[in-house]
Amino acid sequence: MIDFRSDTVTTPDEAMREAAATAVVGDDVYGEDPTVNELEARVADRLGTEAALYFPTGTMANQTAARVHTERGQEVIADRESHVIKYELGGLAQHSGLQVRTLDADRGVPSPETVAAAIVDEDLHRPGTGLCCLENTHNARGGLAIEPGAIDAAATAARERDVPVHLDGARLFNAATALDVSVTELTAPVDSVMVSLSKGLGAPVGSMLAGSDEFVERARRTRKLFGGGMRQAGIVAGPALEALENVADLERDHENARLLAAGLDDVDGFDVREPETNIVIADVSGTGEAPSTVVDRLGERDVLASPFGPTTVRFCTHRDVSRGDIERALERIGDEFA
Amino acid sequence: MIDFRSDTVTTPDEAMREAAATAVVGDDVYGEDPTVNELEARVADRLGTEAALYFPTGTMANQTAARVHTERGQEVIADRESHVIKYELGGLAQHSGLQVRTLDADRGVPSPETVAAAIVDEDLHRPGTGLCCLENTHNARGGLAIEPGAIDAAATAARERDVPVHLDGARLFNAATALDVSVTELTAPVDSVMVSLSKGLGAPVGSMLAGSDEFVERARRTRKLFGGGMRQAGIVAGPALEALENVADLERDHENARLLAAGLDDVDGFDVREPETNIVIADVSGTGEAPSTVVDRLGERDVLASPFGPTTVRFCTHRDVSRGDIERALERIGDEFA
Amino acid sequence: MIDFRSDTVTTPDEAMREAAATAVVGDDVYGEDPTVNELEARVADRLGTEAALYFPTGTMANQTAARVHTERGQEVIADRESHVIKYELGGLAQHSGLQVRTLDADRGVPSPETVAAAIVDEDLHRPGTGLCCLENTHNARGGLAIEPGAIDAAATAARERDVPVHLDGARLFNAATALDVSVTELTAPVDSVMVSLSKGLGAPVGSMLAGSDEFVERARRTRKLFGGGMRQAGIVAGPALEALENVADLERDHENARLLAAGLDDVDGFDVREPETNIVIADVSGTGEAPSTVVDRLGERDVLASPFGPTTVRFCTHRDVSRGDIERALERIGDEFA
Amino acid sequence: MIDFRSDTVTTPDEAMREAAATAVVGDDVYGEDPTVNELEARVADRLGTEAALYFPTGTMANQTAARVHTERGQEVIADRESHVIKYELGGLAQHSGLQVRTLDADRGVPSPETVAAAIVDEDLHRPGTGLCCLENTHNARGGLAIEPGAIDAAATAARERDVPVHLDGARLFNAATALDVSVTELTAPVDSVMVSLSKGLGAPVGSMLAGSDEFVERARRTRKLFGGGMRQAGIVAGPALEALENVADLERDHENARLLAAGLDDVDGFDVREPETNIVIADVSGTGEAPSTVVDRLGERDVLASPFGPTTVRFCTHRDVSRGDIERALERIGDEFA
Repeated sequence: MIDFRSDTVTTPDEAMREAAATAVVGDDVYGEDPTVNELEARVADRLGTEAALYFPTGTMANQTAARVHTERGQEVIADRESHVIKYELGGLAQHSGLQVRTLDADRGVPSPETVAAAIVDEDLHRPGTGLCCLENTHNARGGLAIEPGAIDAAATAARERDVPVHLDGARLFNAATALDVSVTELTAPVDSVMVSLSKGLGAPVGSMLAGSDEFVERARRTRKLFGGGMRQAGIVAGPALEALENVADLERDHENARLLAAGLDDVDGFDVREPETNIVIADVSGTGEAPSTVVDRLGERDVLASPFGPTTVRFCTHRDVSRGDIERALERIGDEFA
Repeated sequence: MIDFRSDTVTTPDEAMREAAATAVVGDDVYGEDPTVNELEARVADRLGTEAALYFPTGTMANQTAARVHTERGQEVIADRESHVIKYELGGLAQHSGLQVRTLDADRGVPSPETVAAAIVDEDLHRPGTGLCCLENTHNARGGLAIEPGAIDAAATAARERDVPVHLDGARLFNAATALDVSVTELTAPVDSVMVSLSKGLGAPVGSMLAGSDEFVERARRTRKLFGGGMRQAGIVAGPALEALENVADLERDHENARLLAAGLDDVDGFDVREPETNIVIADVSGTGEAPSTVVDRLGERDVLASPFGPTTVRFCTHRDVSRGDIERALERIGDEFA
Repeated sequence: MIDFRSDTVTTPDEAMREAAATAVVGDDVYGEDPTVNELEARVADRLGTEAALYFPTGTMANQTAARVHTERGQEVIADRESHVIKYELGGLAQHSGLQVRTLDADRGVPSPETVAAAIVDEDLHRPGTGLCCLENTHNARGGLAIEPGAIDAAATAARERDVPVHLDGARLFNAATALDVSVTELTAPVDSVMVSLSKGLGAPVGSMLAGSDEFVERARRTRKLFGGGMRQAGIVAGPALEALENVADLERDHENARLLAAGLDDVDGFDVREPETNIVIADVSGTGEAPSTVVDRLGERDVLASPFGPTTVRFCTHRDVSRGDIERALERIGDEFA
Repeated sequence: MIDFRSDTVTTPDEAMREAAATAVVGDDVYGEDPTVNELEARVADRLGTEAALYFPTGTMANQTAARVHTERGQEVIADRESHVIKYELGGLAQHSGLQVRTLDADRGVPSPETVAAAIVDEDLHRPGTGLCCLENTHNARGGLAIEPGAIDAAATAARERDVPVHLDGARLFNAATALDVSVTELTAPVDSVMVSLSKGLGAPVGSMLAGSDEFVERARRTRKLFGGGMRQAGIVAGPALEALENVADLERDHENARLLAAGLDDVDGFDVREPETNIVIADVSGTGEAPSTVVDRLGERDVLASPFGPTTVRFCTHRDVSRGDIERALERIGDEFA
């Protein structure tokens, strides 16, 4: 079975398992888990923020950021294809009473003009804008690696109007790797950032929310509200610390993605652009079949992928698929769609 | 003072005042106000629905409709310029935890393809679509009168996917008048409709929410939740009954709007398209001044209008401005911007 | 038909109808209705507050007060029999995400010790207390007139802990009348107060929310969110101004209530304590019948009352029942339960 | 350091650490983590339910249960000292718009009469009752072990009125141990139950929510909304499986609690009743000091406890404090308060 459905399927390696077995732990609700504390300090340092906080999932971290930055009755602006809008079950409205104003953005990051035009001041009829959300890499638009200038321009447009900016950086290390820039160049323009450790980096569980000391202090309380106050979380934070060492391997996933994309593009009925990171979007309309049918046919050949859009299938490369797996997968796909 | 800010400024005439003074009243929370009951029956009949319910405002009626049609955790689709999204203080998220998915629609009503593409089925990551909101006339896009075919096409696309459709018809009688169609042609394709009596029709207070018996029964309870259960409401429902007689006068408002538009378009720096109903949008960028400055300058000449978009000013005609007022206003505006 | 169900059934008299017919009106959303403005100024003056705001209902005014005073994630403390908890459809949670902590209070107003014990400081596990709600007269406990000392003691206990206090004074003029104190003695200790004009005072529609200028300014925006921004509201505010003149008549309603109570207590199977204001609670368990059955039997004799608790029926006296009505009603009730 | 603050401080033993290191894992969002699946099946079997679901915390599991059982606009009834009301940051209102109606119950479980009296049918003014929450053992009332009869009586009173019942059984295994009954006797009368594995049982992370297949299916989606969809959760579910083997050790914690209580009762100024499970509540008013001061003084002697109520301190026994620790702690406390 070669599993391209998502980089969330990565399983912990021996170093991570060893870390789970040996982590020094305490009760993290009391702030007394040394392993969690070390992870939080290490990530804050990497991201160039004052502080960071460990979360069971990136969804909870994103929703927490939105809640902490806003007051009830405000609007959130974000690209319409954002994860926070599209894949988090309407949590912004559900949890925090926030109205979404979706923007259209070619590469997932709205232009400063679009941001400026979308911001509304609070008045008698209109909820004021309370938050701008950006995303990097941009998942639903195909793993696009958003360059620092675009992030900076959009964030500056928001912050000039006193609207804070949250960056959903679930795959931020992929972006930095692809762009060959430091992560801090990507985080410097924003007020808070979420990074996931359980995707390409391979940690079993966990995402981090980073920002100022004051922001993280408030996020800690909101995390409790969402039911994210785990106890001896060091058992999973230990592996997550190990996962941080895997950033250097992401370049290999990107190479594999390019290899996969090139091969898929040669398959009859598949149309694939060169990927920027580890996400490959194949337009399969040329096969004359629905994406779910294509996925089913691949599944019969022990190749897993995800139906994505009306005509597209998503393949993710990650540390649990090797170059050899890519070649084997392409062979099987070629056979199936010969 | 000639007041073009909105048709909400219309004041009750003698017949309405007489109706207020003589209305037979009862406690409408108990359903015992005969005048309210008569108004509700009359409006349901006009709109071709089983039932209707009296509300203090159109905002409350729209928000009630959204809540009754949906379950928590669902999405609402609507044109991004809809009143329900833009001017109701984020109530969909605030009151009912609904996530908005904004659509782009040239004339305010999305195409059936756009509607179909925006509907999402409930799954593990995605809130399902619970409601489609349409608007006619479309206020923020310039009082556009949406023809029955467009309403029907959009509504059918939604209802085919089991998504109910609410029509914000605050100025629905204006639309029917401008299109010269019966109101029921415009309401037939939707599940519920709101019409306002306190705009062009001139009632002092009140909007109606209409739909099936079951829908209105549930709306009655939600109206109480929103604090809309008034007591001897016949005092304002009586004038509203009179206001229903004013539909025939709307054509005059539209003529006045065309006269005003033509005149404004001749003013230096003003660019104005022919209006479809009683709303005239003037692009004043040619004056080199911000809309709010233009509005201030008009105000000094005792002509009131509303800053609208980044470069536009809105003028509404209504029963309290006569053809003579239009002419006087154009003269003053011409003088000011000579 | 003699209607004791509620004092909300009072219908407007000639002076009120005349006021509706002649009120000078404007668009109150723009703050331009002179009659509404006069009513707001007059009520603020009576209640001794900086400002007041007109609402279509007391429920909306209470819910607005709760929202303006609090931040999301806070608790509200109130007697468990409070209108705001019991009869407003869970609006505190629904609209504003507020958790209720109900208190038990003999006469509806908790002791300062109870208030102090119920207040919680915000910490990692606990939502802080954001509001204390009091009620006077206390409806569900039988129209109790709460003396200034009790209001002051409870309010002071809350305010000493920086918890603001809202007073639901739907029938506050009844309380002041019964206690023979000035209304301002009852409002002085609290941050905001709601009074209803459409109950014993007889206005067709309307309640007022009063407090500081800043509070009312914020309440105006929240009123819009709830859909309470009516237009030419002077048509109902005019009658409400007249209703303010009716305070002196409330003493007559209280006398009638005492007369009714004494008579009811003599009816077989009825047990009735002397009322403090215009609400009479009859324990009908001695009849061996459910309150709803008793109410049905009264209805057959053209006497209307409300089933209230598991063994009680509520009778309200008001300006539309005379002393003669009381006597006639007692005769019929006596006949029915002879 | 002897830590009596909570049984949440328990750290994983060697068997659990080994389980973390060797767990077979998969992506639990896809339902593919074999270790999680095994844990869920095992717990469902133990609790006598059709299914169970793994959660990062008990708070999330409780909040999920409340949301799944209810519709918006309903009430939740529960003892006023319930964890779900007192220590979950107002989540019922925050997340799900549910109004709490607190009950008073001597031993934390309301009598059937109290339950029946608290249930309200939905009507025009009143939110209907949507859920009854029970708790066993009852934490805030001192670790009371609620006998099956009391649970059954309360639950039956609710279910007879079609109100579902959720049991917060964070320490349910303690209750079953203390009462010497099977766990299924305690769960049989309710619709859903939460049990925590990270308290007395010693798992590092995790609580379970159990109920019918349909309930758990819906809970899975709500867990995602709350941000509880972890990936390779087997790393912590493995240790949790081991923790299930520790139920037999709870009796030792209870013995230790009785030993501790008896010793504390002999300390000057301490008044302690015999505990029913592993929670010891000491009334320290006799010391003339505030609970927080008493806790500070104990801390200086390396004994940790929690300030609890206005005059009480809570001590929890658990698997990381031995009989010898109890004796040493008592000695130090006795010295401090000699």
